[in-house]
Amino acid sequence: MSEVVTVRSLHSLYEKKGIDSLLALGEVTIFGWVRTNRPSGQLAFLELHDGTHFLSLQLVYTKDNPDFEKMAHLKMGASIKATGKIVASPSAKQPYEVQVSALELIGDVADDYPLQKKRSTFEFLREQAYLRPRANTFQAVYRVRSVLSYAIHSFFQERGFVYVHTPIITGNDAEGAGQLFQVATNGEHPFTDFFGKEAHLTVSGQLHGEAFALAFKDIYTFGPTFRAERSNTPRHASEFWMIEPEMAFCDLKGDMEVIEACLKYAIEKVVTSCKEEIDFFDRFIANGLKDKLQAVLHSSFAHMTYTEAIKKLEEAVKEGISFENKKIYWGMDLQSEHERYLCEKIAKGPLFLTDYPKEIKAFYMKENPDGKTVAAVDLLVPGEGELVGGSQREDDPLKLKEKMGQLKDMDWYLNLRRYGGCPHAGFGIGFDRLLMYVTGMQNIRDVQLFPRTSNALKY
Amino acid sequence: MSEVVTVRSLHSLYEKKGIDSLLALGEVTIFGWVRTNRPSGQLAFLELHDGTHFLSLQLVYTKDNPDFEKMAHLKMGASIKATGKIVASPSAKQPYEVQVSALELIGDVADDYPLQKKRSTFEFLREQAYLRPRANTFQAVYRVRSVLSYAIHSFFQERGFVYVHTPIITGNDAEGAGQLFQVATNGEHPFTDFFGKEAHLTVSGQLHGEAFALAFKDIYTFGPTFRAERSNTPRHASEFWMIEPEMAFCDLKGDMEVIEACLKYAIEKVVTSCKEEIDFFDRFIANGLKDKLQAVLHSSFAHMTYTEAIKKLEEAVKEGISFENKKIYWGMDLQSEHERYLCEKIAKGPLFLTDYPKEIKAFYMKENPDGKTVAAVDLLVPGEGELVGGSQREDDPLKLKEKMGQLKDMDWYLNLRRYGGCPHAGFGIGFDRLLMYVTGMQNIRDVQLFPRTSNALKY
Repeated sequence: MSEVVTVRSLHSLYEKKGIDSLLALGEVTIFGWVRTNRPSGQLAFLELHDGTHFLSLQLVYTKDNPDFEKMAHLKMGASIKATGKIVASPSAKQPYEVQVSALELIGDVADDYPLQKKRSTFEFLREQAYLRPRANTFQAVYRVRSVLSYAIHSFFQERGFVYVHTPIITGNDAEGAGQLFQVATNGEHPFTDFFGKEAHLTVSGQLHGEAFALAFKDIYTFGPTFRAERSNTPRHASEFWMIEPEMAFCDLKGDMEVIEACLKYAIEKVVTSCKEEIDFFDRFIANGLKDKLQAVLHSSFAHMTYTEAIKKLEEAVKEGISFENKKIYWGMDLQSEHERYLCEKIAKGPLFLTDYPKEIKAFYMKENPDGKTVAAVDLLVPGEGELVGGSQREDDPLKLKEKMGQLKDMDWYLNLRRYGGCPHAGFGIGFDRLLMYVTGMQNIRDVQLFPRTSNALKY
Repeated sequence: MSEVVTVRSLHSLYEKKGIDSLLALGEVTIFGWVRTNRPSGQLAFLELHDGTHFLSLQLVYTKDNPDFEKMAHLKMGASIKATGKIVASPSAKQPYEVQVSALELIGDVADDYPLQKKRSTFEFLREQAYLRPRANTFQAVYRVRSVLSYAIHSFFQERGFVYVHTPIITGNDAEGAGQLFQVATNGEHPFTDFFGKEAHLTVSGQLHGEAFALAFKDIYTFGPTFRAERSNTPRHASEFWMIEPEMAFCDLKGDMEVIEACLKYAIEKVVTSCKEEIDFFDRFIANGLKDKLQAVLHSSFAHMTYTEAIKKLEEAVKEGISFENKKIYWGMDLQSEHERYLCEKIAKGPLFLTDYPKEIKAFYMKENPDGKTVAAVDLLVPGEGELVGGSQREDDPLKLKEKMGQLKDMDWYLNLRRYGGCPHAGFGIGFDRLLMYVTGMQNIRDVQLFPRTSNALKY
């Protein structure tokens, strides 16, 4: 009986032990899908893709084979079983190919198959979200998505962080109420029917995470979060995954050290584990991607306070740089164009911007001794703007109570400061945006599996 | 400046290099919370817990210290900073302790702190869900939760499975409509407002996962799923995490091999990484737990068809075993008492029960050649009943179409069989139930962070 192999197992054997170990395998069996099938004269070439690796495997069969005609009719997209011997093939994309003895159709492709050989647009493929993982670009996107996810887990687990599953359905109304999805039962109104109070989908696991940081010291969440925003931009979706670490006995400085280490660790894992995918993105999606990622790996992230940033922007305006939002003043919310100027032109790389005016930041951020700013940080990166947002949390129960104002049912959150509270800090990474940054993909709809935005719920 | 250490870093150094390496550290600083503080005569003992390890660290301070009185007043739950030298201490729980030179209060504990030294009941602690991770049992539960989660990821990643984030908000109505949560916006009715069609919270990522298995061969999900069930049992919650792998070119036999390997891998990781926690559960929560887990690791899971199981149950009734559900017949849905009899009395260990009547299983399961049963499997385990459910999927588009019946908007799912379909199989593990099995905890509310059940949404 011949050994069952995959494109990945062959590739990995080749990389570790060279061509001879492949030739020694004898007859092998492999399952997968037809990418191309080109009979020409006495010889035919079939490109098999099995989803285990970005690369395909070349199968070769000849007119001698009694089933040649049947084989030659196998269509793009069909699932097949192939048996044959591995031979050296310096001319193929890979240095080996399979000389087929038997090729069996498992599942045929109906004539209305929407994917065709010519390159489909991303817009078209979005409409075929259940089939697009078969396309080259999306093979790369979703594999990097998986590798990047696991890298995030590995980073935190290796550092002893406890992974917590903060709830998706929540009764907190901690981050502004306008953009929440409510949760209802059986088409019934009011929404308090099932839980006895209004329930909605979480916008952040942070507050729940803080309770666990004050028991485990270092924790992280990695799960879905939601916004009922109708904004139809390439960077917004109604459902997206967030990573939210929280660390007790940690200040803003410690927070930034973890952010920087985390991003470098994750990018390093992707560039080493997904060489072919990153090559592909660099070549076809975002020229210069590889250089950009290498630069991040070998840089020290720059630091600047908000107050310094305002000065830099004022200088820029004096020097004739024109922003769409011309008026620069202390206390303003920085726009994307300002953020990009700061990291692209001033820092020329990732930039931690810290100590924002308290009025433009969330209630839970720790007030600095100046009474005007909070210990907040945004990480700005060239080409994207904000990639990570974090802060030290307000641990003074009196100050926090004042800032919480009208928030209901949040005594427990306040109590965390009254029962053995301590300086603690955390941050949030929008996982889908990080994936866009790492792949160079320009639309969040093209890095998620089945993106959810307003009026988009086909699958 | 003294080195900042954690209970885990000390413990791990001790295990790897012995006591001398600890003594060589000189003065260290450690942050954490007071578990107990017992001044007596000239000497005082403070048990510090920092959340990085199940164990605490003993701090010793003496009346010589000018701050003795202040130290002696530190209360249970207070957060502190301690500095001192590590010394050998054969009498303590750990073979070393810290001789304190300075002890500093960081965050005090208000007098209404609900956690007290005497053991609180699980019922009481459920009401204090934001504080219970500080209690011994829940330190153990949530650390195992984290280690078990990561073990699941490691198992699949090491085998080349691609991790996919299937959507939480979905428009599919594939698994029976009665128990769904709807998603609404801004308190508005009808629920079609935001997405243009009715949206609800997913009950399973399987169907979306199948689309990705047919592109990547092997994939897995690991994310939250939902049921709007009002059943108030120790095993049901409205929100819980599921693991759902899906494998192309795989039949029921391959499916079962992965289930068995996955569970053994995950349990092995937990028993080796969480020794103290499993000891604790074995001693205080579920006597015999360690033996049970070791037995699973060293067993070959048994196999039995549903038809054989019915015969065994009929024999049992003849032999005088009395079930609450007395009538045993082919075609019946097995009840928990039957499942437990089969694995506890007949198999005496984990049991794969296969090939159920098609009428009692889901539409997407592959019909067997007998026309009466489907290629389904449930894994039954002693003490719990069903732990995993899986099946080979129906890959014949005509048969599937017939079984799908009235389901709307599911053409894409059917098309997966028309566009290069192939035999594929998968399974689902309820992660919270797996955690109950591994820890011996008896109520799902005590293994989740902030459990959601009807009328329970306090945090």
